[in-house]
Amino acid sequence: MAAVTDLVERLRSGELRLYELEDIADPDDATAARRAYVEEETDADLEKVGSYTIDAADAEPNIENMIGAVQIPMGVTGPLPVDGEAADGEYHVPLATTEGALVASVNRGVTAIRDAGGSTARIMKSGITRAPVFSVEDVGEAKAVADWVRENEAELAAVAEDTDPHIAFEDVTPYVVGDSVFLRFRYDTGDAMGMNMVTIASEAAAEFVEEETPAELVALSGNLCSDKKPAAINAVEGRGYTVAADVFIPDELVEDTFHATSEDIAAVNTRKNLVGSAKAGSLGFNAHVANIVGAAFLALGQDEAQVVEGSNAITSLEAREDGLYASVTLASLEVGTVGGGTALPTQSEALSVLGLAGGGDPVGSNAEALAEIIATAALAGELSLLGALASRHLSSAHEQLGR
Amino acid sequence: MAAVTDLVERLRSGELRLYELEDIADPDDATAARRAYVEEETDADLEKVGSYTIDAADAEPNIENMIGAVQIPMGVTGPLPVDGEAADGEYHVPLATTEGALVASVNRGVTAIRDAGGSTARIMKSGITRAPVFSVEDVGEAKAVADWVRENEAELAAVAEDTDPHIAFEDVTPYVVGDSVFLRFRYDTGDAMGMNMVTIASEAAAEFVEEETPAELVALSGNLCSDKKPAAINAVEGRGYTVAADVFIPDELVEDTFHATSEDIAAVNTRKNLVGSAKAGSLGFNAHVANIVGAAFLALGQDEAQVVEGSNAITSLEAREDGLYASVTLASLEVGTVGGGTALPTQSEALSVLGLAGGGDPVGSNAEALAEIIATAALAGELSLLGALASRHLSSAHEQLGR
Amino acid sequence: MAAVTDLVERLRSGELRLYELEDIADPDDATAARRAYVEEETDADLEKVGSYTIDAADAEPNIENMIGAVQIPMGVTGPLPVDGEAADGEYHVPLATTEGALVASVNRGVTAIRDAGGSTARIMKSGITRAPVFSVEDVGEAKAVADWVRENEAELAAVAEDTDPHIAFEDVTPYVVGDSVFLRFRYDTGDAMGMNMVTIASEAAAEFVEEETPAELVALSGNLCSDKKPAAINAVEGRGYTVAADVFIPDELVEDTFHATSEDIAAVNTRKNLVGSAKAGSLGFNAHVANIVGAAFLALGQDEAQVVEGSNAITSLEAREDGLYASVTLASLEVGTVGGGTALPTQSEALSVLGLAGGGDPVGSNAEALAEIIATAALAGELSLLGALASRHLSSAHEQLGR
Amino acid sequence: MAAVTDLVERLRSGELRLYELEDIADPDDATAARRAYVEEETDADLEKVGSYTIDAADAEPNIENMIGAVQIPMGVTGPLPVDGEAADGEYHVPLATTEGALVASVNRGVTAIRDAGGSTARIMKSGITRAPVFSVEDVGEAKAVADWVRENEAELAAVAEDTDPHIAFEDVTPYVVGDSVFLRFRYDTGDAMGMNMVTIASEAAAEFVEEETPAELVALSGNLCSDKKPAAINAVEGRGYTVAADVFIPDELVEDTFHATSEDIAAVNTRKNLVGSAKAGSLGFNAHVANIVGAAFLALGQDEAQVVEGSNAITSLEAREDGLYASVTLASLEVGTVGGGTALPTQSEALSVLGLAGGGDPVGSNAEALAEIIATAALAGELSLLGALASRHLSSAHEQLGR
Repeated sequence: MAAVTDLVERLRSGELRLYELEDIADPDDATAARRAYVEEETDADLEKVGSYTIDAADAEPNIENMIGAVQIPMGVTGPLPVDGEAADGEYHVPLATTEGALVASVNRGVTAIRDAGGSTARIMKSGITRAPVFSVEDVGEAKAVADWVRENEAELAAVAEDTDPHIAFEDVTPYVVGDSVFLRFRYDTGDAMGMNMVTIASEAAAEFVEEETPAELVALSGNLCSDKKPAAINAVEGRGYTVAADVFIPDELVEDTFHATSEDIAAVNTRKNLVGSAKAGSLGFNAHVANIVGAAFLALGQDEAQVVEGSNAITSLEAREDGLYASVTLASLEVGTVGGGTALPTQSEALSVLGLAGGGDPVGSNAEALAEIIATAALAGELSLLGALASRHLSSAHEQLGR
Repeated sequence: MAAVTDLVERLRSGELRLYELEDIADPDDATAARRAYVEEETDADLEKVGSYTIDAADAEPNIENMIGAVQIPMGVTGPLPVDGEAADGEYHVPLATTEGALVASVNRGVTAIRDAGGSTARIMKSGITRAPVFSVEDVGEAKAVADWVRENEAELAAVAEDTDPHIAFEDVTPYVVGDSVFLRFRYDTGDAMGMNMVTIASEAAAEFVEEETPAELVALSGNLCSDKKPAAINAVEGRGYTVAADVFIPDELVEDTFHATSEDIAAVNTRKNLVGSAKAGSLGFNAHVANIVGAAFLALGQDEAQVVEGSNAITSLEAREDGLYASVTLASLEVGTVGGGTALPTQSEALSVLGLAGGGDPVGSNAEALAEIIATAALAGELSLLGALASRHLSSAHEQLGR
Repeated sequence: MAAVTDLVERLRSGELRLYELEDIADPDDATAARRAYVEEETDADLEKVGSYTIDAADAEPNIENMIGAVQIPMGVTGPLPVDGEAADGEYHVPLATTEGALVASVNRGVTAIRDAGGSTARIMKSGITRAPVFSVEDVGEAKAVADWVRENEAELAAVAEDTDPHIAFEDVTPYVVGDSVFLRFRYDTGDAMGMNMVTIASEAAAEFVEEETPAELVALSGNLCSDKKPAAINAVEGRGYTVAADVFIPDELVEDTFHATSEDIAAVNTRKNLVGSAKAGSLGFNAHVANIVGAAFLALGQDEAQVVEGSNAITSLEAREDGLYASVTLASLEVGTVGGGTALPTQSEALSVLGLAGGGDPVGSNAEALAEIIATAALAGELSLLGALASRHLSSAHEQLGR
Repeated sequence: MAAVTDLVERLRSGELRLYELEDIADPDDATAARRAYVEEETDADLEKVGSYTIDAADAEPNIENMIGAVQIPMGVTGPLPVDGEAADGEYHVPLATTEGALVASVNRGVTAIRDAGGSTARIMKSGITRAPVFSVEDVGEAKAVADWVRENEAELAAVAEDTDPHIAFEDVTPYVVGDSVFLRFRYDTGDAMGMNMVTIASEAAAEFVEEETPAELVALSGNLCSDKKPAAINAVEGRGYTVAADVFIPDELVEDTFHATSEDIAAVNTRKNLVGSAKAGSLGFNAHVANIVGAAFLALGQDEAQVVEGSNAITSLEAREDGLYASVTLASLEVGTVGGGTALPTQSEALSVLGLAGGGDPVGSNAEALAEIIATAALAGELSLLGALASRHLSSAHEQLGR
C-alpha cells in the first residue's frame, strides 16, 4: 500500500504518466494508484469500480490504463431449446444489461418457443473479413491488380495462413473504385471471432500484393470489411456468422402467451419491421435484435462494438394456416469462445453456463453453437416484443371501446 | 443461507420458477438461489459472477432473473480537453472494454489533441424520438390523418407532456406509406436518454390520435424512431444528440505523434472512410467510432445496444496549409446521466469522474456535456487509428525498400 | 443546301467546330451540317435521326450540338380512373418505351383498377430542393452558421423568392458534417419541376449567407438535394411530390384478372418487394415502378434522369377480408407541365392527351395532377407484374403436378 | 384511310378495344386508328406524335397500344478518345436529352479529356443477374436448399444455358432470409443487355430447383437481382458492367478549361460527392452520372428505367503533384447492342455512329465497348459539372471581394 501512495505522489508531481505505471509496478498496484490518482483529481469515489474480482495481470490483454471494472447486472433466460447443428439442447442463456424488462421480455419468448416444442437454428454462411485498401496509378492498373489477385488466390491463401496455424483462408474478393483497390479477405478462424488474427494474416497478404504488383497499401482496413460500421456489404454478404432461427407456434399457444392473434402479431411485423424499416432507409428489419445481441455479448465476453453488425437482422412473420411462423436472420453476427474478452473471469463463467468456454471439439463448434444460441434468443426477444406491441394495441383499442 | 438452499430445492423440484424467486425472497437471496440453481444445472462455477458489489435490490430497475454481474475492465484516458458548450475543461474519461489496445490508442489521440491546444465540440441538434405506426383505410384517410396531426401539434404536445413533468415535446413529423401512417415524435428529455419517458408520452399522444381520427394504432414503435437499428433516418435527421468535435493539429505535431504526414493520414481517411464506406453501402463513414462510443457507454451506464446508432458517424480530414484538420460528426448519439444504468454503483462512480453523475444544472447540461465529451473522445480514437494505419503503411513500404 | 455543304466542308477542314455552327447558320442548317459531318466521319447513315418534326430553333433550350432526334415508340394505356385532388377523371396515359409488354402489362392493371371502381391518389408532401454546401472554419462556426440560417429564414426566403415570381420558398434545413454546412432549401415551383429556378434562387440565398456569415460556398449542389442520385434523404423526406395511390379489388375480380388469389399476390409482394428489397439493401421496395415512371417521363417531357428518384417507392399489399388492398407510395416524384422538355412538340401533344399541357389553374394543379396520374399508373403496373409473378408460379406448380 | 375511319368508329361504339386493333388491322392502321380515337376522346392534336419514321410493324417487339412516337432531341459530343479494352479510338457520342446545357457541359469535359491526351476505361466485372425467390418450410430446409444449389451449380448451369445458345451461366449465389431462399443467377449474355434471356434461363433453373428440392418458387424475381431499383447489392456486387474510366489532367490545362484549380475542383468533389452523399444516405457518390447515362441510353436504344442502376457510381478526384486525377466508377451499367430498343431506326443509326450497331466480333465486344464509352462520357460530364461548381464559387467569391 505504501507503494501505491508513492506511485500516486509521483503521478501528482508529473514525474510519472498514467500509462507508465505498469512499467514500475505490478498490475494491481498500478491499477490502484491510477484509481487513487483519478479519485483525487476528480473528487470521485471509485470504491465500487475498485471492487473487482479480475486479477489485473490477467486483464492486460484487454485493457490499458486500468482503474477497475464496471459491473453490469447479469440475468439468465431459459431453458431455451436450441436445435442447431452445433448447439443441441436446452440452454440457460446469461444476459447482461441495464435495460429493465429486457430479460423478462426475452423470457416470455423463450417460454413460447419451449411450449411450441422448440425452434431450429442454422448457420447459412460464415467467415470473418478484413479488407485492406491499396492505391494504384489508374484504372488500368487497378484491373491488372484485381486480375492478379484472382489468379494468385492460392498463393495469397498460403501467405495468409502462414501467419497463424488456427486460420483458414476462404476467399478474397477484389473491389475497384477508380485508383483504389479493396481486397476483401475472408477467413475461418475456428472458435475465435478472429479480428486480430485476420488483420495479421491480411497484412501479410497485403505485403505480398505490394511485392508482386504495383499496388501500394494505403490502409490495412479499407472499410469494406466492414468492422463496427452499419454497412450494406455485411447485411448482404454476411460477416462472422449469417445465422437464422425460426419457430412455428400454434394459434392457441400464441394467444395464450401473447394475448394477441397470429394475424395481429404478423401485421405488427409487416408494418413496423418491414414497411417501417423500409421507409426509414434501414439495414435492420427487426424490432430489437440489438438488445439481445448486446446483452449476450456483454455477458459472454464478446466485442460490444460489434453489436452494430449484429443489428443487421431481418425478422419475418407469417400467420400460417394454424399458427404463427416466426424467423430471425442475422446477417453478420461476430462471435467467438476464445480470445477477446472470453477469458475474463465472469465472462468465462458465463460461457461455461452454456458449456462453451474455450475451444470447441471439433474446432469452431463452440463459436457456431454460440451463434445458434444467440440467434434463437434473438428470436425469443423478437416474438416477445412484437407480441407485446400487438396486444398493447388491443388493450388501447379496448379502452377506446369501453369509453 | 438455509433459505437459499431451500429455494434451490424448490426450483429443482419445479415448484418454483426462476422468475418467481423475488416473490418470496429478498433480491440477494433470490439472486443467490438462482445462481446456485444454474450452477447445478450446468456444472458451471459462477463464483466471480456472484462477487458483485451491486445491491441486488438496487438493480431491480435494470435486470430480471439476476444471477450476478459481469465485470468489464475499466480504463481511463485523459485528461482530454473538451471545449464544448456544456462541457468545458479537461476530463479523465472512463472507458470499459475488452478490446486490448483500444484505451491506449484513444490515449494517443488524446495526447495529440491536448498538445494541439484542445478541440472544440458542438451539439448541432437534439431530441429523442419515438414513432408509432397506425393503420388507416386508404391513402385518402392517411392524408387526412397526417393533416390533422400537423394542425393539432399543440394539442398533441400538451397530451404528451402531460405524462411527465420532465419531458418537453419538440415536434412531430408524419410519414405515410400506403395505408400506414408513422408519426415521428421528438422530445427533449433533459438529462435522461429518455426512451421510456417518450414511449409513455407517445402512447398518450397515439391514443389521442386514435380518439380524434380514424387511425388505429398498430405498434407504439413503427421503426421510424429508429431505436437500435442501423437506419438512414437517424443518420440524416439525427436522434439523441447530433454532435461534432474537431481539432487542428500543426504538421510537426502530427508527424511527431503519428509518424505520418498530414497528407498521408488525410489520404487514409479519404480512401477508407469516404470511398471505402461509399463502396460498402455504409451509413458509417468512420474508422471505429463504435469502439469509443461502446466503451464509454459501458463505463458510464448507457444503453449498450444504442452503440448501433452511435456508429452513424462521419469522420472528415483535410490536410490544410500547415496542419491537419480533423472532425468527427455523430448523427445520433443517445446518452443520459439519469435513468437507465446510470445509477448502478460502478457506473455512477464513473460518471462522477466526469462530474456528470445525476441531473445537470441547468437541466440537460449533464447529458449535453456527456455527448460533447464522447464526441471528443471519438475524435481522439479516429485520429489515432487513422494515424496508425497511415504509418503502418509507411513501415511496410520501408520494409519493401529495405529488401 | 449549298450552305450546309459548305458548313460541312468547314467542319472537315477544322476551321469550324461542331458547337460553333449555330453562330453562323440557322439552327436547322446547323443541325443538318453537323449530322452530315458525323455521317461522314463515322460512315453512319442518320436519315431517320434527321427525320424529326421538331423545329431545331425550338429545341434550343433543350439540346446543344443537335443532329436530329431519337424516336421512341409511344403507346397509350387507359382509360385510367384517377381519384386525386388535382386529377379527377379517366385518363388515357401516354407511355413511351422500348420494353415490349410493358404497356400491355400496365393496361391489365388499369383494367383491374377500372373494374374495381377506381383508385385514390393523394399528394402527401411536395417541394423541390437544392442544397448548397459551404465550408467553415470549424464546428463552432458551423453551428453558428446553422443557427444564423434558422434565425434568418424569412430573409433567406425573401432573397430566394426575389429571383423569380413563380417560386415560393418553403423552408431550409441545415445539416452539418464537421466543417461543411449543407443547407437544404425547399421550394414550391408551381407547375414547373423547377430545378433551374431553385438553383438560381438558392444561388442568391447562398450568396446572402456568404455575405452575412463566415461560410464560404463550395458548391451550389452539395448532394443533399439530392438530384439524380439514389439517396435515402429523398426516400425518407421526399423531393418533388411524395404521392401515393391505392385500390381495393374484390377477391373475385382479382382472380379473374390475375389468375391468382389475393393471398398469393400479397405473398409475392411480401417476399419480393419487402423481404427481398430488405436483403438487397434497397431504397426501392417495389417491383418495377421505374418502368412506369420512366415511360411516362419520356412521353410527357419530363427529365429522364430523375427516374432515379422516381424509383424510391414502396408497394404494399394486403389480403383483406374479401379482397386485395394495394398501394404504391412514391417518395420523390419530380414532375412539371411547364419548362424542361414539356414544350417540345410530341411531348406537349402527349401532355394535352391528359389535358395537362402548360400551366394549371390554379397554379400547380397541372403538375399535381400529373403526379397523381403517374402514381396511379405505377399502381397499375405493380398490380399487373405482381399478379403475373404470382400466377406464373401457379402455372409452373401446375406443370409440376402434371408430370 | 377508310379502314382507319371505320376502326375508330368501332372503338367509339365499344365494339373494339384499343388493344384489339392489331388483331384486325395492320400495325400502321391500328396505330393511326388508336391515335385518332385518343385525339377524339381527349381533344388532343397528335399530329407530331403521328409523324414517326418507325415502321409500326417493326416496333411490335417494343410497344403495345402504339399511337406514334415521342421525339427527343439528339445531340452529339466528341470526338471522345476512349482507351478501353473493347473500345479504342475517338468516338462521336450521341446523347438524347431535353435538359438544356447538358451536351454542352459534357462537351467541355470531352475537350479536357482530349486535350489531356485521352482517358482510360476498364470493365472490372460483368454479368447480368436474375434472382428468383422460393419459399421453404423453415430455416433447416432453407439451408438444405442453399447447399443443394451450391453442390449442383453445374447442373443448374446446364439447365439454364439450354434455354438459349447465346447465354453463358456464370454463377449462382444463394441468400436466405428465414423461410425465403433467393438465388441470384449471373450470366454472360454477349452483346445483349439480356434481361429477357436471363429471365427465361432462370425460370428453367428455378423449375429444376423446384423439381429436385422442396423449395417452391414464389416469384421469378425476388428483388435481389436487383432490376430498376436503387439497391446496395448492385452498388456493391455490380450488375451488367462494373466499369471505370479515368484521366489525368495537368494543372495548367485544368485551369484553362475549368477556370478553377485542381485543388478547388477536388475539394468540391470531396465535400459534395463524398461527404454530401454520405450524409444523404446515398448509393450514388457522384454529381450527375445519371444525366449522361440517361442521355446515352435514350439515344442508343437502352432501357431508360435502368438509369436507376446506372446512377450507382462513385466519382473520385485527387489533386496530385502536378495535375488532377479524376475517375468515375459505375457499379452497375446495363447495356447491350442487340435486343431491346437497339433495332429501332433512330437508335440503330445512333449505335452505328459508334460503330456498335448489332452484335460484336468477338461476341460481347460491342456491348463492352458501349460500356467503356458511356463510362468515359460520364467522366467528361462529372469533370465539367465539378469544374463549373468550383469556378462558380470563385466567381461569387470575386463578386464578394468586389463589393
